[in-house]
Amino acid sequence: MKGIFIILITWAISCGPDRNQYTGEVGPPVLPDRKLHAALVVVDGVYNTELIAPMDVFQHTVFHTGQGIYVSVVAPTRDTVVTFEGLRLIPDFSFADSLPPIDILVVPSARNSMSDDLNNQALISFVSERSRQALYTVSLCDGAFVLAQAGILHGMACTTFPADVAALAQRFPSLSVHREVSFVHDRHVITSVGGARSYDAALYLVELLYGRETAVKIGKGLVIDWDLASVNAYRTAR
Amino acid sequence: MKGIFIILITWAISCGPDRNQYTGEVGPPVLPDRKLHAALVVVDGVYNTELIAPMDVFQHTVFHTGQGIYVSVVAPTRDTVVTFEGLRLIPDFSFADSLPPIDILVVPSARNSMSDDLNNQALISFVSERSRQALYTVSLCDGAFVLAQAGILHGMACTTFPADVAALAQRFPSLSVHREVSFVHDRHVITSVGGARSYDAALYLVELLYGRETAVKIGKGLVIDWDLASVNAYRTAR
Repeated sequence: MKGIFIILITWAISCGPDRNQYTGEVGPPVLPDRKLHAALVVVDGVYNTELIAPMDVFQHTVFHTGQGIYVSVVAPTRDTVVTFEGLRLIPDFSFADSLPPIDILVVPSARNSMSDDLNNQALISFVSERSRQALYTVSLCDGAFVLAQAGILHGMACTTFPADVAALAQRFPSLSVHREVSFVHDRHVITSVGGARSYDAALYLVELLYGRETAVKIGKGLVIDWDLASVNAYRTAR
Repeated sequence: MKGIFIILITWAISCGPDRNQYTGEVGPPVLPDRKLHAALVVVDGVYNTELIAPMDVFQHTVFHTGQGIYVSVVAPTRDTVVTFEGLRLIPDFSFADSLPPIDILVVPSARNSMSDDLNNQALISFVSERSRQALYTVSLCDGAFVLAQAGILHGMACTTFPADVAALAQRFPSLSVHREVSFVHDRHVITSVGGARSYDAALYLVELLYGRETAVKIGKGLVIDWDLASVNAYRTAR
């Protein structure tokens, strides 16, 4: 009986989905000594939730830290952007504008993230150049396809929307695409499965930057009981 | 030993937070025979998540039902609305516009939902009048204060953002304000605690209207494993 129990436990550990490689411990926070800038890159057809979840988590830092994060919405032009769900947004900056240096580059998914957007040279160049200068790059859902096309993910661990994991791995064979996780953190890149899980990836980055207590407070404001240890994440880097 | 077990179970049932009064069973779906219209009422300072969560859930019905729900953003005027987090939105309709009949009236929280917005006669009148004509009225977070001020919640069960439960009960003594729930459904009104829990209330209404399977599919698209039985809700009506 005891033997069966041990076998079951061993099976559960070896066959279960990837768990926090660093079991919830993220080390001391960065505690930036200046206000950071998170730029959310949007194109027509951007998905609301994948844009809003990181925007809210990052913007709310200003109420719980010394300086926090300034968030901006950046689009190919200053024209109104219509989201997938029909919301009409006015971007803060166009790609051509002289915008403040970007510390956190955020790429939400959009209707054409797996198709036409990958041939949008203005988008791919912007993401490629700005990601190299940023401290962190975050994709939500199929935003991972845009990062991969921009050459940011080469040889790295990542994830995307659950139904698109196989397509991402097939199109970009150098990637190690993880299933059944909320997000993956490899070096300076965090990729999230997206949807309502997008809050996890953003809260995790807030925990890395400003510490657990700040992430918990922001979670509380969003009625999320934040606890990294209970999130199914794959992390190869702090 | 068995006695202690029974006592513990009894205690857990009597002292635990409110659970589904109808234990997950919502009866046959309404299955509307026409396209419905969900109007999201926004004012300056509206919170992104409380606007977007119901918008996404309701809009995504068009991909999973015959006709689904048309969503629109309605504001006091056609001027650009700046959300709490700084997003700039262009409303689809102003209160004065001749807008389509509203089937689902949605009132997200805003910066001043507990203060100045309650003295905004245009807002309160619009919500009061349109709620009477709607099939359902849904508030997210402190949107419940606006509903209460509009006279919609008199004598009813409801909820609001966790930290504001006492303030709501004090300001509107006829209400039965519930704690530690995700949402409350009483008659034609669904009130949600808001934040990331706003998806629950919207998915629940989709389940009422279009059935469980549709709600599960929409949940999947938003990376939410929808199961009403696992949501802590208080329901006094189907």
